[in-house]
Amino acid sequence: MFKNFICLEGIDGSGKSTQITALENLFKSKGFEVLKIREPGGTEISENVRDILLNPAHKGKMNNITELLLYNAARSQLIHEVIKPALEKGVAVLADRFAYSTLAYQGYGRGLDIGMIKNLLSITCGDYFPNKTFILDLPVSLSRKRQAGDGARSGQDRIELEKNEFFERVAEGYRTIAKENPESCVLLNAVSPQEDIFKLLVSHLDGSLVPCS
Amino acid sequence: MFKNFICLEGIDGSGKSTQITALENLFKSKGFEVLKIREPGGTEISENVRDILLNPAHKGKMNNITELLLYNAARSQLIHEVIKPALEKGVAVLADRFAYSTLAYQGYGRGLDIGMIKNLLSITCGDYFPNKTFILDLPVSLSRKRQAGDGARSGQDRIELEKNEFFERVAEGYRTIAKENPESCVLLNAVSPQEDIFKLLVSHLDGSLVPCS
Repeated sequence: MFKNFICLEGIDGSGKSTQITALENLFKSKGFEVLKIREPGGTEISENVRDILLNPAHKGKMNNITELLLYNAARSQLIHEVIKPALEKGVAVLADRFAYSTLAYQGYGRGLDIGMIKNLLSITCGDYFPNKTFILDLPVSLSRKRQAGDGARSGQDRIELEKNEFFERVAEGYRTIAKENPESCVLLNAVSPQEDIFKLLVSHLDGSLVPCS
Repeated sequence: MFKNFICLEGIDGSGKSTQITALENLFKSKGFEVLKIREPGGTEISENVRDILLNPAHKGKMNNITELLLYNAARSQLIHEVIKPALEKGVAVLADRFAYSTLAYQGYGRGLDIGMIKNLLSITCGDYFPNKTFILDLPVSLSRKRQAGDGARSGQDRIELEKNEFFERVAEGYRTIAKENPESCVLLNAVSPQEDIFKLLVSHLDGSLVPCS
């Protein structure tokens, strides 16, 4: 439906924000207005939900279904308050994580039923789903190394506190998602140089970069 | 599955808390440990979600699907942290609102798809559903009058700020729910004297009041 709703997915340290910044510059150079979004958050209500979700004090307390519903509540608000009006105006929307994060983390990571999550995502997103998702595939060991090297970080949130096995399941889940959605998903090797990844990414944009309206 | 998970439903002012107090005394007199719950809330995480849901500043901003997901997130946490362990110990759980509130307010009140909500409730609740629900049926005009007469109240929350037509749809929704679930729901006329309502309610408890374990 909307040609310029593009999402970057992948475990932490895979380079999502670097690619988004490069994409932002590209879209702007083509005359687009650009909206960058980050999940969970992006509206007052969604940021309130983010605070609950990422609070390290809730580690070990928050039930998996609660977590699933909270991520989707934050997403629903972001869609209706921000994404929908932007896409309707022809703005290019660049998302740092979206629905496939839920499938990867709560589905493959936590082990919740995949079919149930797909149902819930359709309740939450309706027609508002990225038309192209780039999944940056990175070994978990490298993700941990890149995060440790990031001096600007202060403390870890509730999700980052998970064990390596959790992130292994998430990374493998992302590969499965890419395999099952070849029309809308592209799996990219996140170990390659950022410039090479970006060139490959742009080659998959096809008919995007053409204003809808 | 659990015999002593009992819920009171109905629009505000219908007398739910009076009946719950009377039920609490009855169950205690029979030797039960009793747990009273109130939705949304009852755990630290659920109370955080409650603050987002009822904040009057969010009126007109919160999307209906967001609201739906937040109520269920609060409920999921309450089930897993509080209700499940209580029922497993044989405690009688008395709920001031539960899943049928979502069906009545977000389904019939807001006009969201009923089938979709039932799906979501099954994701949220699993096997943890009241074995008996008493719906206190009150005309909306009387609900408003009783609320206005309650001098202790200070300010209205986001849901209470809705118009009368909304509460008419909710009240009618509750009647439909009672009709469609005759095995687990009892509709009681909330205009009757509280003592008469309580006698009727107790007559429907059947095999309850007998410890499970």
